[in-house]
Amino acid sequence: MTICAISTPAGIGGIAVIRVSGKESIAICDRIFVPHKGSSPLKDTEGYVARYGKIMNADGILDEVVATVFRAPHSFTGEDTVEISCHGSLYIQQELLRLLIKEGCRMAMPGEFTQRAFLNGKMDLSQAEAVADVIASQSAASHRVAMNQMRGGYSNELHILRDKLLHLSSLLELELDFSEEEVEFADRRQLLEVAQEIETLLQKLTNSFAAGNAIKKGIPVAIVGETNVGKSTLLNLLVNEERALVSDIHGTTRDFIEDTVSLQGILFRFIDTAGIRNTTDTVENMGIERTYEKIAQAQIILWLVDCTQVSEHIEWLADRIVRRSEGKKLIIVFNKLDKIAAEEKEVLQQLFENYPAEKLFISAKKQLNTDMLERALLEAAHLPQLSENDVIVTNMRHYEALTKALESIQEAQAGLTDGIASDLVAEDIRACIHYLGNITGEITNDEILGNIFSKFCIGK
Amino acid sequence: MTICAISTPAGIGGIAVIRVSGKESIAICDRIFVPHKGSSPLKDTEGYVARYGKIMNADGILDEVVATVFRAPHSFTGEDTVEISCHGSLYIQQELLRLLIKEGCRMAMPGEFTQRAFLNGKMDLSQAEAVADVIASQSAASHRVAMNQMRGGYSNELHILRDKLLHLSSLLELELDFSEEEVEFADRRQLLEVAQEIETLLQKLTNSFAAGNAIKKGIPVAIVGETNVGKSTLLNLLVNEERALVSDIHGTTRDFIEDTVSLQGILFRFIDTAGIRNTTDTVENMGIERTYEKIAQAQIILWLVDCTQVSEHIEWLADRIVRRSEGKKLIIVFNKLDKIAAEEKEVLQQLFENYPAEKLFISAKKQLNTDMLERALLEAAHLPQLSENDVIVTNMRHYEALTKALESIQEAQAGLTDGIASDLVAEDIRACIHYLGNITGEITNDEILGNIFSKFCIGK
Repeated sequence: MTICAISTPAGIGGIAVIRVSGKESIAICDRIFVPHKGSSPLKDTEGYVARYGKIMNADGILDEVVATVFRAPHSFTGEDTVEISCHGSLYIQQELLRLLIKEGCRMAMPGEFTQRAFLNGKMDLSQAEAVADVIASQSAASHRVAMNQMRGGYSNELHILRDKLLHLSSLLELELDFSEEEVEFADRRQLLEVAQEIETLLQKLTNSFAAGNAIKKGIPVAIVGETNVGKSTLLNLLVNEERALVSDIHGTTRDFIEDTVSLQGILFRFIDTAGIRNTTDTVENMGIERTYEKIAQAQIILWLVDCTQVSEHIEWLADRIVRRSEGKKLIIVFNKLDKIAAEEKEVLQQLFENYPAEKLFISAKKQLNTDMLERALLEAAHLPQLSENDVIVTNMRHYEALTKALESIQEAQAGLTDGIASDLVAEDIRACIHYLGNITGEITNDEILGNIFSKFCIGK
Repeated sequence: MTICAISTPAGIGGIAVIRVSGKESIAICDRIFVPHKGSSPLKDTEGYVARYGKIMNADGILDEVVATVFRAPHSFTGEDTVEISCHGSLYIQQELLRLLIKEGCRMAMPGEFTQRAFLNGKMDLSQAEAVADVIASQSAASHRVAMNQMRGGYSNELHILRDKLLHLSSLLELELDFSEEEVEFADRRQLLEVAQEIETLLQKLTNSFAAGNAIKKGIPVAIVGETNVGKSTLLNLLVNEERALVSDIHGTTRDFIEDTVSLQGILFRFIDTAGIRNTTDTVENMGIERTYEKIAQAQIILWLVDCTQVSEHIEWLADRIVRRSEGKKLIIVFNKLDKIAAEEKEVLQQLFENYPAEKLFISAKKQLNTDMLERALLEAAHLPQLSENDVIVTNMRHYEALTKALESIQEAQAGLTDGIASDLVAEDIRACIHYLGNITGEITNDEILGNIFSKFCIGK
């Protein structure tokens, strides 16, 4: 079936592009497209050539467009494809789709163009999934990881793993063949070495997921502290917009407000939390409980303190925040710097000196020292330095498959060490190959595919 | 100078198109574009041919793109142009612009591509202005008018006028040449005939503006009535979304809420107004005053009445609404039909029989008879039946120029009738030609151009 969809972002613009893909795409488009005089219809147009012409509907001329022909297999989907570049009015976009459907197209489902590219062998499944990641990328780092995956860097790594597993498998078969001749002992050592090597590679990939997730979704930074110390003001400053409601009333923020911003190419996900204080308000206490959860999920914690009125409950508060920040980066941020004298800074530093954390003085409202805060955040991010070819796992589905593959190879290793029968070990190896095949789509089913592509936008 | 801009709608999508236009466009793009192996750089690419390749930045591969070359004068702007179709992530779009600017492009100003098309003689000014109208069109009717104008239908009409004026001018010169031989009388009659013909054409165009404006901006429909009769519920129903705040509290709507919706290709602009009642609340009274203004501006008035509780102030209310609806289409809409018995309908109809208006019973909440209301609206719209080639003036600037041209030709007619000297009449004719030249851009200046194109979106 030939499919069509608007491939450009939703809305009004100078131009919009409607993509038509499938066996009938060129014939269908020729039924509504009238080439400019002297020009050929699309059926007589080579791939990668554009034609100027008119789209006709019952009322007359719908639009003047440029239609570009791509011929199978040299198109994104691997099928015959026409891309119609029209004026970007909502009316024209909708009417053009209506005409195409009337002439025999069907609306594409989300991700269906990319799914066809996968089914037609233009890319493997992990590459196809990366297309969505490339489109969603907001920072240089997440873009680079997604682009590398889309271009097959990850797939190459998986192919290397697969080759090693097949090699291991063949060694096992060799052992099975000669098992009656009692050469088992020597072979097992060799097998273990190969298994070890595979485990190391799998471990490297699964380990990269934490970094990959931070790159893709942003490094989680929880902004915590007492009520009314300026947490929401700081969030608004960091993300450069009025994201959170700010007021002088204690306990204004009850829900969580998250927003991401890219600082020097690294994405941060800031989480404004409910202020922590001793209160009997049930709703507020629920908010405070959730603040603790957010601290647990964060990688960096900004403990915001109001310079002008340090609470008498510091110890009570520190007990709640510092303990929960272990193993994470805690930064104590003294806010409202503009409102205190220089000597008060020292008093504050002494007051907090027992708490193991970096300390910074800022004014969120006056935007003082916010560059220092930015630097501290970038240092605390400590993402691995990525080069263009580094393979980083960012996809939960892949992470799960890799984890299972890792378990299988570890089972195989244990089996080899414990002298388990070779055919049982061979089963673990096959399981490992199977899980890797899930990632690249060599082994898959319709349900998995449906799940993956339904998360795409329509038109891709 | 070579300019660049994102031409597709703002946001994230499957693909985005970046347009580069100017003498250096092909050379600049070749500096960041690496054609796929076996393919040529853009400088060796013919017009209307697309190339697949990579865009490189300092980090490596930014994206895999399709770049289409258009060679002067066969492009939208009339200049060498490259359209780069990239993945539609915000990061890629921004980074690609940054690269182009680094290589020597400048960001295009709003409408600058179309302005260049005008300056390079690809279209006249009224056609260029229609490009923005085509993009903004929301209904079939407004689209048809804008498309006709963009394709030059309007310009043709103006050219015919211009030819007639030049003919008139030459007749006048003839008269001047032979004035000593006293052939004046016969000529003046002929001159008057031609002037009459021109006046008729100009009158037709200026008259079309009222319809043109309704087509472009929507036919204004004021929804009026007492407080709490369901005006906001009706607006939400008509425009199919939760546009207005609805509550049981009298006087919820204090400001005006407008929204447009296209019914069978005709655009309606619905205006929800503050409920009319006798109140001492100053803010509410200001709202009621503005309700009266909205009635004055509307073409159709929907007077909404709550079936379940007809106010004792009907006469007071009718006095305010019916009087102001003279010369407009007034429809009395009895709402909450679901809550009354059939015999009550008759009582209501008798109660309102003195008011000259169409009457309808509906339930906005239960969506009863809303199709009847839609039909009544469509009948009341009575737009001229447009054919593809009808010329309709929709642009305020054109309307003003046409009005001045009309005044000039009327001056000329008066002059001819009153026996004013031919050289003075000739001046009126020249003024008329001048005003028409303003529309097509034959006579223009930078300020006018700046004004026109600044209203465009960037990228067109």
